[in-house]
Amino acid sequence: MNYKKLDKLTVLDYILDVNSVMSYFGEDELQADEIGDGNLNYVYKISSIQDSQKALILKQAVPYLRCVGEDFALSRERMSYEIRALQKFYSIFPSFVPKVHHANEAMSLVVMEYLDSYTIMRKGLIERTEYKKFSEQISTFMAATLFYTSSLHLSSSEKRALVDRFNSNVELCKLSEDFVFSFAFMEHETNNKERVEDSKEAKKLFLDMELKEKILELKYKFMTQSDALLHGDLHTGSIMINETRACIIDPEFAFVGPFGFDIGVLLANFVSSYVYHSVVSRDDEYKEWLLLGIKEFLAKFQTKFLDFWSESKNSALLIEGYLDSITLEAYKRKFVKDILRDSVGFAGCEAARRVYGVAGVEEIRGIKDNLLREKAEEMVLKIAREFLMRYKTIQNCDEILEILRDAR
Amino acid sequence: MNYKKLDKLTVLDYILDVNSVMSYFGEDELQADEIGDGNLNYVYKISSIQDSQKALILKQAVPYLRCVGEDFALSRERMSYEIRALQKFYSIFPSFVPKVHHANEAMSLVVMEYLDSYTIMRKGLIERTEYKKFSEQISTFMAATLFYTSSLHLSSSEKRALVDRFNSNVELCKLSEDFVFSFAFMEHETNNKERVEDSKEAKKLFLDMELKEKILELKYKFMTQSDALLHGDLHTGSIMINETRACIIDPEFAFVGPFGFDIGVLLANFVSSYVYHSVVSRDDEYKEWLLLGIKEFLAKFQTKFLDFWSESKNSALLIEGYLDSITLEAYKRKFVKDILRDSVGFAGCEAARRVYGVAGVEEIRGIKDNLLREKAEEMVLKIAREFLMRYKTIQNCDEILEILRDAR
Repeated sequence: MNYKKLDKLTVLDYILDVNSVMSYFGEDELQADEIGDGNLNYVYKISSIQDSQKALILKQAVPYLRCVGEDFALSRERMSYEIRALQKFYSIFPSFVPKVHHANEAMSLVVMEYLDSYTIMRKGLIERTEYKKFSEQISTFMAATLFYTSSLHLSSSEKRALVDRFNSNVELCKLSEDFVFSFAFMEHETNNKERVEDSKEAKKLFLDMELKEKILELKYKFMTQSDALLHGDLHTGSIMINETRACIIDPEFAFVGPFGFDIGVLLANFVSSYVYHSVVSRDDEYKEWLLLGIKEFLAKFQTKFLDFWSESKNSALLIEGYLDSITLEAYKRKFVKDILRDSVGFAGCEAARRVYGVAGVEEIRGIKDNLLREKAEEMVLKIAREFLMRYKTIQNCDEILEILRDAR
Repeated sequence: MNYKKLDKLTVLDYILDVNSVMSYFGEDELQADEIGDGNLNYVYKISSIQDSQKALILKQAVPYLRCVGEDFALSRERMSYEIRALQKFYSIFPSFVPKVHHANEAMSLVVMEYLDSYTIMRKGLIERTEYKKFSEQISTFMAATLFYTSSLHLSSSEKRALVDRFNSNVELCKLSEDFVFSFAFMEHETNNKERVEDSKEAKKLFLDMELKEKILELKYKFMTQSDALLHGDLHTGSIMINETRACIIDPEFAFVGPFGFDIGVLLANFVSSYVYHSVVSRDDEYKEWLLLGIKEFLAKFQTKFLDFWSESKNSALLIEGYLDSITLEAYKRKFVKDILRDSVGFAGCEAARRVYGVAGVEEIRGIKDNLLREKAEEMVLKIAREFLMRYKTIQNCDEILEILRDAR
């Protein structure tokens, strides 16, 4: 099938030929509505006219960045990686990603579960919602997807086959390389002009060579360390959530990269939320909930990762009997601690790049009051700097929380 | 074209249709002779009957391990990776690999320069030949091929395209994972029975958990660290050499892996040679030449790698102006020191695995006298252990030489 951009009308014609979708709707008549913020893709809600509870999402990529226009080319193959990642994550732990009803790489489209009663987590955190099950959920998702797509579980050939499926996600990896690790730390046209201009703090950051050397180390790791399949952009805007379920969406940045990256990105976005509530809502109780959430997420991640590992005796890396059990346990504990350390480093990059880079986060850049926003920015940068300067020697989760508590 | 195994007769028919080869031979009549040890592949010398100086090599892979038989399957796609690596290395520095006159991945064959007056370096080292230009040559080859296939030079998309070309070299990577890092350090049916049976030293090695944990770290790095295109099996048997030129052959194990691996493998094979001359020839002068060769090779590698780097201002990793020049220089120096350290670690794995593993080296396993051979084995293991326990903190080449000098 040749690629064709669908619209509100042709999307229904397309759907009529897809058995897996039609069997979901049965005999109902269908309607299509365009929804979504439409930064990158076209998103349609396909729903039954007879039963509005029956609905699916159809998401199609176009070969440009939609919010900028057709002149800003961005290969629509990104949808292939999103589809592959959704399917892979689903095969490992189905409940944490939207169910895919139909996928078509040639058409760069996917039809999936409509997450009706869900909130984008970033908004929920701004509104001080306490998601009591989140640390349990996200730690399971991360431990499972990272472990089961790594050389600690897969065979050597399975791992190479996985790399093969994602290695060519060139454009989106390059976006991360540039925007997470480079441009936001130097004078660059893509940076947020308003935030950078006349900012002493921005100048200070751009001249902080000690810090930037650490960021460069982590950039190198991001580019060359093929640990496991990553979501690639796991901030709180990529999580749809309600009281019972957290659902990870938009994995178009997926690739096989370093263990610590997704964890670090999520940690950084919790930092942004913590800073927002330190500066804006000043809700100490909610701040404590956030800190507890971070601690539980990281601690449970480590425990679960080790639990999964204890069930995999043979893998690309390990052959049963190679190490005695005491040495093996020590090796594993060190391995997981190294993941935690790298996560803290990556969190530093992600938190800091949101301050002056092109893509700010609502919690910081969205603060209306100039003084408060500057205060929030300083606080984020302070935490990010501590993370980056100390990540290689972090011993445990409490140290991470201390860095947050100590920041003013 | 469908794959067909050629023989002494059909190889000439095949050649007749290949313009690039026929233009080399002109109007001459040709003859084919099967040569080579034929462990894995069929190798034919194609030569002119009129002018015996005119000759090329045709090498074809069969879908099994030839020396064991058709029952031992080994995908003939290994030849595709050999071809791709030869061509890539040639494009970077033509003089260090045989010139390829014709390559056909579908037929799993390559036609290349016949290296007439060359010796296999391993044999030359046993015979105490001093290759005066070798450290200069090999340091150039390694610095150039590693640097120019890394994210320190390539763009992000070029690097991913390179990974794509080699990522599926599954079977041969798996052989290295098993034989360099695992089986030779535990009871395993593939190990050399004669050497392992009743050997206290073998038992000690297999129970040396402190050491094996280090080997496991390096195995993990081998499997997941995508620094640069490696030869993958760069021992002294993969180098054809004479007084004027060193030529790297047989890169069928090529893949994108950690910087330190090829360097480490070559260092380990120099260690074997050093041990051989310590125990068997006891030629102190030659031993000094070997030590000097190691030192020069490693020191020159570092200098040249940094020289190439100084000419590449922009790459996947670096954007000009991101770091100030002092910080950048410090970063680069640390980077290259880390390569040296990893090389020492990989050298420890490679040297040690040759003692009890399936593939011994002539210098050690080939020693006829039992006592001398055992002494050589102990000495190799002693050096390998020092390498592995100390690789993370090695400061310079002299420390590496000291480890060799101190071993008895």
